[in-house]
Amino acid sequence: MRYMRRLNKNMISLFFSPKTIAVIGATANPKKFGNAVTINILRTKDLASELYLITQNTKEILGIKCHKSILDVQKDVDLAIILVPARAVDGVIDECIEKHVKCVIIITAGFGEINQEGKKAEDLIAQKCKKAGIRVMGPNCVGIQNLDIGLNASFIQAAPRGNISMISQSGSFSCASFYAMDRENIGCSKFANIGNNIDVSFDEILDFYKEDANTKIICIYMETVEGGRKLLNTLKTIVPIKPVIILKGGRTSSGMKAASSHTGSIATNYKMLKTSIQQAGATLCENATDFITALKAFSFLPDAKGKRIGVLTNSGGSSVLFSDKLEEFNLTLAEYSDSLKQKIQPYLISLVKIQNPLDMIGVAAEQQFYEITKAMLEDSDIDIVVPCLVIPPFLEMKSDEHYRGMIRAWNETKRLKPLVPFVFFGENFIDLRELAKKEEAPVFFTPTEAAYAIKVLLDRMKLKI
Amino acid sequence: MRYMRRLNKNMISLFFSPKTIAVIGATANPKKFGNAVTINILRTKDLASELYLITQNTKEILGIKCHKSILDVQKDVDLAIILVPARAVDGVIDECIEKHVKCVIIITAGFGEINQEGKKAEDLIAQKCKKAGIRVMGPNCVGIQNLDIGLNASFIQAAPRGNISMISQSGSFSCASFYAMDRENIGCSKFANIGNNIDVSFDEILDFYKEDANTKIICIYMETVEGGRKLLNTLKTIVPIKPVIILKGGRTSSGMKAASSHTGSIATNYKMLKTSIQQAGATLCENATDFITALKAFSFLPDAKGKRIGVLTNSGGSSVLFSDKLEEFNLTLAEYSDSLKQKIQPYLISLVKIQNPLDMIGVAAEQQFYEITKAMLEDSDIDIVVPCLVIPPFLEMKSDEHYRGMIRAWNETKRLKPLVPFVFFGENFIDLRELAKKEEAPVFFTPTEAAYAIKVLLDRMKLKI
Repeated sequence: MRYMRRLNKNMISLFFSPKTIAVIGATANPKKFGNAVTINILRTKDLASELYLITQNTKEILGIKCHKSILDVQKDVDLAIILVPARAVDGVIDECIEKHVKCVIIITAGFGEINQEGKKAEDLIAQKCKKAGIRVMGPNCVGIQNLDIGLNASFIQAAPRGNISMISQSGSFSCASFYAMDRENIGCSKFANIGNNIDVSFDEILDFYKEDANTKIICIYMETVEGGRKLLNTLKTIVPIKPVIILKGGRTSSGMKAASSHTGSIATNYKMLKTSIQQAGATLCENATDFITALKAFSFLPDAKGKRIGVLTNSGGSSVLFSDKLEEFNLTLAEYSDSLKQKIQPYLISLVKIQNPLDMIGVAAEQQFYEITKAMLEDSDIDIVVPCLVIPPFLEMKSDEHYRGMIRAWNETKRLKPLVPFVFFGENFIDLRELAKKEEAPVFFTPTEAAYAIKVLLDRMKLKI
Repeated sequence: MRYMRRLNKNMISLFFSPKTIAVIGATANPKKFGNAVTINILRTKDLASELYLITQNTKEILGIKCHKSILDVQKDVDLAIILVPARAVDGVIDECIEKHVKCVIIITAGFGEINQEGKKAEDLIAQKCKKAGIRVMGPNCVGIQNLDIGLNASFIQAAPRGNISMISQSGSFSCASFYAMDRENIGCSKFANIGNNIDVSFDEILDFYKEDANTKIICIYMETVEGGRKLLNTLKTIVPIKPVIILKGGRTSSGMKAASSHTGSIATNYKMLKTSIQQAGATLCENATDFITALKAFSFLPDAKGKRIGVLTNSGGSSVLFSDKLEEFNLTLAEYSDSLKQKIQPYLISLVKIQNPLDMIGVAAEQQFYEITKAMLEDSDIDIVVPCLVIPPFLEMKSDEHYRGMIRAWNETKRLKPLVPFVFFGENFIDLRELAKKEEAPVFFTPTEAAYAIKVLLDRMKLKI
């Protein structure tokens, strides 16, 4: 049994690091998914995996010789990616079995998600492959990615590279979240969309991500949950090691109805699921923005060691709205100690009242943000520092100077404490975004986003105490 | 009494359209707010208002002759903008009274918001001005703007031009929201930040906005509410004519504490306020993102005539998450009629199940989005159309083609029904954003945003029935 589990893990690993790949249903027609997958795999010039293209329609695609059948390939094939029409899949699977292919991804749609007939067809395929010892992802999926080795075995864009590994029950949701990750300078190590998942399960991929050295954070987009108890047990083993961030589509009956047409499965009672996931210690997000915010928080910020939050700002309004959000999340502001007050006094003008949030008013520039952020980061009574900023459109201030000051303070204190830079509606300042990218530091753009980032860090801290 | 009200309204109007302006405390030093205001006023080359600069420190600023005192100005002065240090304000006010200045904006901070002494000083100024018949905004404010005539009598950047008029109790919040408006291609007609508002009140400005022909939408950022009942009565008279969108900072005790240091006033019980504002029919937002979303919805979309929502998509995941949000807001999907089903059938591939949300899967391109959006806009059983999109990174599709299709359908149906284009995490697609700007059409980027836009339209519709 133990041997079988190890064997299974090795099989999952093979999906992500195949020595040989065959694309069955490759085509030169750029309006077909068989072309998209081929192009995506070829895009990485130095990819270690060997690629074979299988099609009956042409002899050559992009200078690569094509085979009529996978049986014509001389070498052993680790991974076959199938994109032929639904009616032809069964025949192709037979050939894969004959060829002793180890792993198969069936991208083709038109199975269990559309009707009973499709369900029967995919069940048959599952049985056949199981008997032959072939592991299957799909059908009705976009494929998988291993960004560490540059493998994009899917028809969507490669995720930006990073340390998140993702499982998604919606290909297009992954696609959208890759756009968001790109915008936020975070990215993926591995990605899998398992579609109707007739064989490989969430748990198996999660187990693989758990052991994977390049995976620091795991995230899941799910619509339906089968084997709920097993999944929760898996989560419980992972959460102490790596944060797991979950977004569930189909939380309401309308959403469930939409989801069931989409993946062809029955949705779950969300309230129960919510309780279980939270008990397992994973981060369950209530919307897509929170999902990306949680990924940002875990990607950029160190663990919180305590919950005392220090806020400094050049904008009263921002810190008011931010304080409101903190309280909505049951988070609390630190009390500034007398020694801190004395330390920061020299950098403040006389109009400023020294209290938390510290409103340094609009005149505060790079130096104030640097000095006060640093003093707070060095203060033993503060655990998390939040510089709130509205970029001043006056007094010849530069749009990135305040941010530069706070990040310098963070760098000089070795990024030991979480710094949550909140730049209110600063999305369109190119200089700021470029600096954040260069510094590999986060920026949060709304009060909700900044407060939620802290909430997920503190939820995780509680878990560890 | 009636005469006095009319007189007061004319006085408020004079703040926004003064024939002559004096900046008292003007300076050539770009590191001072007296310079920022001067530059901002001068930026509009063809501004009809005459400008006088008052300073004792220099004879000329940017080629404009300066006067030592407002008493040296030959002409009558409609509006004096005061930026001298707090201790000098009282003397300057005496001169304004002697000069029979009609309106005064005191930008200088350091009054009631910092201590009791400051409170006394501003009370004295208020009394003096009242006796002399001078109306006052401030102290401790950023100023006002009338974008229709190009007047930026404030030290922050001019708002993008549009048809929203704003009152804000936080200058920096306004600043941040102008950044967001700019990003979303919406903008302002008038803007006022009244600071410690020792004289001119929220109500008076709201009354002025109510009658103002260029103001189609009114928005308020408030932290403290005095004269709550009067404000609510004013709201009740405006809401049937124009939508009023409100964001309240200091909703929680932490927020209130932060707010009271900021504007020096006592915050209000939010629950009571919430009930009252909702009874008055205004749109009360719970966070800054919703505030901007509501402004977008009212800026771009026509009134909803019914609540039946039709959804089409190329992405199952997006429509699932969107449907969840709809239900959380108690909104419901339409039933597609047989005639609509027949009409759209020819544009769909066989894998597509015709139901709401209509998942046309990833292959749907510009033509499908155009045809189906148009069919739904023309359908008498659908009131609001939501095309949900994840921009496809495959099959050589253009990043703006689907959006182009849906907007063409909207234009051809004369924009009679609300169209809510939801492009999931599409913020970074420049082509898309430029097309939206050119078409003067909205884009919503998250499920929450799209659903909230519909919610505020439908809340307002209920009001009118």
